[in-house]
Amino acid sequence: MKQFAVIGKDINRNDAEAKARGQALYTDDLKLPGMLYGSILRSPLAHARIAHIDVSRASALNGVRCVVTGEDIPKVKYGNWRLFPDTQDEYALAVEKVRFIGDEVAAVAATDRDTAQEALSLIRVEYKELPAVFDVEAASQPGAPVLHDYCPSNVSVNRKIQYGDIEKGFAESDYIREDEFNVHAVSHAYLEPCSALAQLDQDGRITLWSSTQVPYIVQCLLASTLGMRENDIRVIKPFVGGGFGGKMELRTWEFCAAFMARKTGRPVKFTLSREEEFLTGRRRHPMKIRSRVGFKKDGTLVAKDLRIKLDGGAYNAMGPTATFLCGNFGAMLYRYPNYRFHGEHVYTNKPPASAMRGFGAPQSLYATETQMNIAAQELGMDPVELRLKNAQVSGDKIPDVATISSCGFIDSIKKVAQMSNWKKKRKSLKPGQGLGIGCYSFISGGVFNWFNTTYPFSAAEIRAFADGTVHLLTMTADIGQGSDTALKQILAEELGLRMEDIRITSGDTAMTPQADLGSWGSRVTLMGGNAVLDAARKIKAQLFGAVSARFNMNVIYELECKGGRVQAKGRPDKGVSFGEAVAMVQRANRGEPIVARGSYTPRDKGLVTPAFGFGAQVAEVEVDQETGIVQVKKMWTAHDCGTVINPKGVEGQLCGSIQMGLGYALCEQFVMDGGKTLNTNFLDYKMATAVDMPPGDVAHVETYEPEGPMGAKECGEGLASPTAPAISDAVFNATGYRCTDLPITPEKILKGMKRGFI
Amino acid sequence: MKQFAVIGKDINRNDAEAKARGQALYTDDLKLPGMLYGSILRSPLAHARIAHIDVSRASALNGVRCVVTGEDIPKVKYGNWRLFPDTQDEYALAVEKVRFIGDEVAAVAATDRDTAQEALSLIRVEYKELPAVFDVEAASQPGAPVLHDYCPSNVSVNRKIQYGDIEKGFAESDYIREDEFNVHAVSHAYLEPCSALAQLDQDGRITLWSSTQVPYIVQCLLASTLGMRENDIRVIKPFVGGGFGGKMELRTWEFCAAFMARKTGRPVKFTLSREEEFLTGRRRHPMKIRSRVGFKKDGTLVAKDLRIKLDGGAYNAMGPTATFLCGNFGAMLYRYPNYRFHGEHVYTNKPPASAMRGFGAPQSLYATETQMNIAAQELGMDPVELRLKNAQVSGDKIPDVATISSCGFIDSIKKVAQMSNWKKKRKSLKPGQGLGIGCYSFISGGVFNWFNTTYPFSAAEIRAFADGTVHLLTMTADIGQGSDTALKQILAEELGLRMEDIRITSGDTAMTPQADLGSWGSRVTLMGGNAVLDAARKIKAQLFGAVSARFNMNVIYELECKGGRVQAKGRPDKGVSFGEAVAMVQRANRGEPIVARGSYTPRDKGLVTPAFGFGAQVAEVEVDQETGIVQVKKMWTAHDCGTVINPKGVEGQLCGSIQMGLGYALCEQFVMDGGKTLNTNFLDYKMATAVDMPPGDVAHVETYEPEGPMGAKECGEGLASPTAPAISDAVFNATGYRCTDLPITPEKILKGMKRGFI
Repeated sequence: MKQFAVIGKDINRNDAEAKARGQALYTDDLKLPGMLYGSILRSPLAHARIAHIDVSRASALNGVRCVVTGEDIPKVKYGNWRLFPDTQDEYALAVEKVRFIGDEVAAVAATDRDTAQEALSLIRVEYKELPAVFDVEAASQPGAPVLHDYCPSNVSVNRKIQYGDIEKGFAESDYIREDEFNVHAVSHAYLEPCSALAQLDQDGRITLWSSTQVPYIVQCLLASTLGMRENDIRVIKPFVGGGFGGKMELRTWEFCAAFMARKTGRPVKFTLSREEEFLTGRRRHPMKIRSRVGFKKDGTLVAKDLRIKLDGGAYNAMGPTATFLCGNFGAMLYRYPNYRFHGEHVYTNKPPASAMRGFGAPQSLYATETQMNIAAQELGMDPVELRLKNAQVSGDKIPDVATISSCGFIDSIKKVAQMSNWKKKRKSLKPGQGLGIGCYSFISGGVFNWFNTTYPFSAAEIRAFADGTVHLLTMTADIGQGSDTALKQILAEELGLRMEDIRITSGDTAMTPQADLGSWGSRVTLMGGNAVLDAARKIKAQLFGAVSARFNMNVIYELECKGGRVQAKGRPDKGVSFGEAVAMVQRANRGEPIVARGSYTPRDKGLVTPAFGFGAQVAEVEVDQETGIVQVKKMWTAHDCGTVINPKGVEGQLCGSIQMGLGYALCEQFVMDGGKTLNTNFLDYKMATAVDMPPGDVAHVETYEPEGPMGAKECGEGLASPTAPAISDAVFNATGYRCTDLPITPEKILKGMKRGFI
Repeated sequence: MKQFAVIGKDINRNDAEAKARGQALYTDDLKLPGMLYGSILRSPLAHARIAHIDVSRASALNGVRCVVTGEDIPKVKYGNWRLFPDTQDEYALAVEKVRFIGDEVAAVAATDRDTAQEALSLIRVEYKELPAVFDVEAASQPGAPVLHDYCPSNVSVNRKIQYGDIEKGFAESDYIREDEFNVHAVSHAYLEPCSALAQLDQDGRITLWSSTQVPYIVQCLLASTLGMRENDIRVIKPFVGGGFGGKMELRTWEFCAAFMARKTGRPVKFTLSREEEFLTGRRRHPMKIRSRVGFKKDGTLVAKDLRIKLDGGAYNAMGPTATFLCGNFGAMLYRYPNYRFHGEHVYTNKPPASAMRGFGAPQSLYATETQMNIAAQELGMDPVELRLKNAQVSGDKIPDVATISSCGFIDSIKKVAQMSNWKKKRKSLKPGQGLGIGCYSFISGGVFNWFNTTYPFSAAEIRAFADGTVHLLTMTADIGQGSDTALKQILAEELGLRMEDIRITSGDTAMTPQADLGSWGSRVTLMGGNAVLDAARKIKAQLFGAVSARFNMNVIYELECKGGRVQAKGRPDKGVSFGEAVAMVQRANRGEPIVARGSYTPRDKGLVTPAFGFGAQVAEVEVDQETGIVQVKKMWTAHDCGTVINPKGVEGQLCGSIQMGLGYALCEQFVMDGGKTLNTNFLDYKMATAVDMPPGDVAHVETYEPEGPMGAKECGEGLASPTAPAISDAVFNATGYRCTDLPITPEKILKGMKRGFI
């Protein structure tokens, strides 16, 4: 494998010091002269018709500068799936109807936050309450309350995948297992609440600073909802305190900030409270999953029939993608010669679910992996062996959907079994102790252009200077995941430079090259990285030409950028420093600076992704027999993210994933009363904290992904999936309680421990 | 002449509304978390050796975070004339010596302004006073106190120009006139005092926001003084409240802000007080001008011998350029077959003089024009006739220095005579009333690369979008003169777009294309404009190709961008909208956005400038016999700035020039006691105010400058020159007092009215 100088080294994240020093400016830190503070009035009802809104008292309040309702705004629906305009079902403020508790009804901008809050209390809304529905089964029955007139069935998206012959597959199966799994909603719980600040600039344009994962998407959708031209909107992503999928759409406050800035001529800022975030924020899709799997006696998989109903809440949001993907994830990890999937995205009168770390995988794979563990038990096989027997390998196809390229899945399973001393340890467990396994596969960005962009999926511009530095410009959005750092590493490696030689500007739609689809689906390292490489190679070609000419090199010589030099390969004597080479090209171009643009758009990569990551995880738990409390003693993880760009960064992703996985498995949940979320703060919404984190061992099972930059692929989201099934299996092995409805609470364990401790 | 759609139309300045609304953020408006406030300790002595500095008490003061002196900083001298490093004579903080009252000795950064001020008072500096010299004659005598060891003569720059045979010329002259003129220092008096804010960014780089005319120059010089790489410095020019030449160098506070931000890790901001600005700020060069001119009997000029001593103050600053230019301006306006110039830039123990609107012309042309008026009187000719007889015309050369291309000088003289009813009015004046004339020529940017840049002199990048908008990026610096507006007009015209279709980003060294030398010497419209045109033509070529192909056009067809369309010339049916054409190109490039870069570097244009502006001005005055107070009744101006890009903008420049010209002629002066400036506020430093402004008529004598964008050339500085000689001549005609030492104060008039009113 290639020897790298920068890739594979532990690098501190680009934003680490500024964040640690308190110098990083998040959106809410920004203040502009004459700035107004916005607040949003939200529906107290889960389903109602708006009969009348009276804003007169609010408008008259001293300090209030602007009040808007759905009546005042352009009636333009938006949504990320621009390729299918029918899926765009949301107005920035409710028009005629509200569909969930928290639905945005009106917005106020005032000279201070308190006045804005007070004004909200002065708005009188007359509602005509409608019957509401909170359950996917009920919502998809005939006669159920209808949320959207355009969609009388409440099923807004249907997605089917089928290959092989499912009936024949089951007919040929020796052992068939069918289960229903109910997986629940959890919160992104990013530390920085959503915030947006809009300013009307001197030309009537709008600049929007927003805590977003998708500057380009916000730019485009904001333009269409405001009836402005895309490039009259500039979206800047300041430092962002996490997103996890919860900040990847145009949102009401972004629209209202811009709309009200235009209306008042003054900057307007909205920042959500934590209560608003929990009460009304996007969340991971709850899903009702019915999975039927057929095996041969020897454990060979023959067929899988997967039906998933996604509880989408009141609007589509990123639900179409989740619907699309959970069926694809259902076909991953193992070879299913005969496969059928039917996914339905169902409206209910709850806060919309949307993208969240894993994007359909944690739900779908909880079912897959738990069912594999059940099957192994019933077939009398070791779960590791059963997996190894069926594991996907490089070259495997999901017909018409994807081909698996690099694949370290089998090695990951073997490695995690070895690390955890799987066989031996399983046998030596005491009552109340359990060991369990879970696996995952995940995408490195999506290839299906649902946003219908006319630009490359990722783009990069590189400016090279005679002082030996380069400036990398890209619209990618570092939201704390470390993408700026990874892209700098890729560029440093390719140009033979050091990290400190690179300035990066990212996430500004006016200043960086069109376009980048944003930070989601673990796409940035691969797609942004490929765009960087494309641009870097154009820079290199120019430098190589100049150095070749200077040293009168034989045309067959290979050149390299290495150690800050541009030289004949392995011949530092036949070369100059990077800066000198730049100066040579610049002089030859009569002073013109060296600039190159590059881009990446996946082509001929099926419908899902250019590359899949894989991995396996083993959890060891101890369950208290009296309280049912689960203590995770240790986690072992082996995963294949292709080439590891930044070990420290991968470790960060891994720790974060385990923290989220623990919460998903054991403690996080929205406590709902009908459509009302009851736990709206960090005390009542229980997340795993630092002291809950188990120790762990990790192995990077490196492969080389041909489609990825320097062989890299995803590492940020796949690991969100295996933790819950691994813990669930461990709990089963400890207690006999097999969880099919997350989370695995002490109550459920105590109730489910039919046999007592094994 | 070509019909324009946008050029020649009155356009509101790009920054007007933001400034009027109070939404424009100037450097001092910027605040960053943890920001420190800087203050500068200045020398109370005009010339002294620094024996010792004790900063211990200042450093110990609560709230003080950093104290630096000349001992702490890298010993790197700087100055704008990088091509001749010997001219770089300044340290950011005094090293070993102070050379004028106000010379920067130390800097403090503290948590608030008051603490920083208090800390200054705690710094103990032990000086050994040296003899000082305040006069150019005294300073250039042998044995005079020496300011800089490297320059024992105190004459830091010598500039000679000679062509023809000066001795022969005078021998052939029928009438020879020799005069000495003493012109004085005046202040730029920009409304926004200098301010700089530096931040250490996450990669150890520096971002500097500064009220500057020259972001690129500050970037480069800051890098060299800090020992950093150029591109590790980013200079951003926020809104700027005027410069007039006073903000075109790296200055102490810019260095200290950056140096102290690096040292403390915290943002540091310096903002000068008005008192500091007046006490120590740059100013227009005082000059001692000896001019000897020879004429034939009929008024034909034969020879001119010009000697100028520039009072440079303590450092070179932009003095070398002023020395260079005042000799060139001496050779302008009229045809001197035999010409000799010797300019000397002399150090004195006063605040450094530097560039100021006109850059050597107001001084040099005050002598030229006053002497022309004297000669006309003595030769018994009408001053207008004498000028017409000798006026330069298109094609005239200053040997080895410049060729005059477009030239509306004669037309300007004729026009201003006609407008002011010159002949008739001169005869009808009552005692105490006077009419006088002054003329000018000025450069449209310099071609002599004293900054030794390796980049084009101006550059532009244009990004074109399918929504019909374009984004123009340029490093040019709009400091209130309206250059952003002019560049947008040029682009709008060339691409057939409207002003609102164009976004401009300017004056940011990291984000805009390398490079632009800044706003000085009336260079931006011509040089920046040419760079914009160069880029725009590359955009057009792509659009034309796509539209040609779409309509299957005969290859001989000409196409045009007009009225928002790209079409066969004059055939709107054979074309598409601008945005559609962009989309066509973009699709053909598989989504890649359209981007083009352009640049301009003057070549083969001699040593001075690519193009000269010309004009003439007539002033009518009334002088009170008892008080000597001059009232300017009216001004008539006819000028040739090539194509008028923005009449409103030109009018703004004209009004500003007259306001400054009035002050230069009549009231502005630094009252000095040795090296100490005594009038350090707007009450004591007397500028013309709105109520002092005379009514006026203006004629744009349009020519078409082949080297200028759409035929345009300078309009911002030339008009700073004619006002003083015109008023001076009018005062002479009203009172018999001929002023040879500006300003024309009532005292001088009363003293000089030898004959009483004529």
